[in-house]
Amino acid sequence: MSLNLDEHISKTPGFPKEGITFYDISPALEDADTLSKMIAEMVGLAKAYQPDIIAGIDARGFLFSMPLALALDCGTVMIRKAGKLPGKVIETSYALEYGEARLSIQASRAIKNKRVVLCDDLLATGGTLTAGARLIEQAGGILAGAVCVIELTGLKGRQKLGCDVSALQCYEF
Amino acid sequence: MSLNLDEHISKTPGFPKEGITFYDISPALEDADTLSKMIAEMVGLAKAYQPDIIAGIDARGFLFSMPLALALDCGTVMIRKAGKLPGKVIETSYALEYGEARLSIQASRAIKNKRVVLCDDLLATGGTLTAGARLIEQAGGILAGAVCVIELTGLKGRQKLGCDVSALQCYEF
Repeated sequence: MSLNLDEHISKTPGFPKEGITFYDISPALEDADTLSKMIAEMVGLAKAYQPDIIAGIDARGFLFSMPLALALDCGTVMIRKAGKLPGKVIETSYALEYGEARLSIQASRAIKNKRVVLCDDLLATGGTLTAGARLIEQAGGILAGAVCVIELTGLKGRQKLGCDVSALQCYEF
Repeated sequence: MSLNLDEHISKTPGFPKEGITFYDISPALEDADTLSKMIAEMVGLAKAYQPDIIAGIDARGFLFSMPLALALDCGTVMIRKAGKLPGKVIETSYALEYGEARLSIQASRAIKNKRVVLCDDLLATGGTLTAGARLIEQAGGILAGAVCVIELTGLKGRQKLGCDVSALQCYEF
């Protein structure tokens, strides 16, 4: 049976702050059948971008980067919050839907001239994914596309990104 | 060919602070062949605990909880840093190898009487995993075991945990 993902996403208005609705994928994750269908769909979306490497964004992006990498016979790299990665890093700062933050990638990761697919749970204003995209390009990678579970289409995040984006489930806000 | 994981783990002495060596799994993650062997070994270790649910600890635990859950036909739950999860949460605080932190799990997750395997990248002093274990038990789950990539045996973290632990690669400190 096909997946109705919306049934497995809980909505919490006012979290983490007033005016934001938090879309929580936890119910989808805890059900083995839903989880497996959700990942199979994401694998299909990512495969279309013909990736060599899947880049996951700290923290919930890591949930998806790994199964996509394994299914598509790719390696994976971590795009982490600043201060978390050892060695020489490339850093960038960006505005969040609620606040500001910095992301980093290790300069030593072998992504030069590789097709990289970015991966996160949610595309909202696009700040996080755009910062991730910038890091991939600064590290010499080819941004092949981005894959998310949820897209908030009303926030027009995909217009910021310099690559195609695929999402499993859309909401307006 | 069997996996020599040590070759794919970089060591950074003095990160994130003096006296600590940071074991970095990034090289293992970026190589598709190493990644796939590493996860296959972890799946074998987790399978022995006969899990119903895999619980991943924020953030690097998420890299492993998801492929283990998929391979073993389980669901997965997130154990997150405080303030990240919507709805009613169970929280606990713990001492880190460097600092202090709080972890949380959603009270609404269906883990009551389920066999839960905890999953993280590193077992050091055991503070994080023990906090995770406490949350699983407070949420009514049965702590079936823990699986890590790296164990620092000299820090005796496994003696703190009330369950069996399996690791792919051991170092003393």
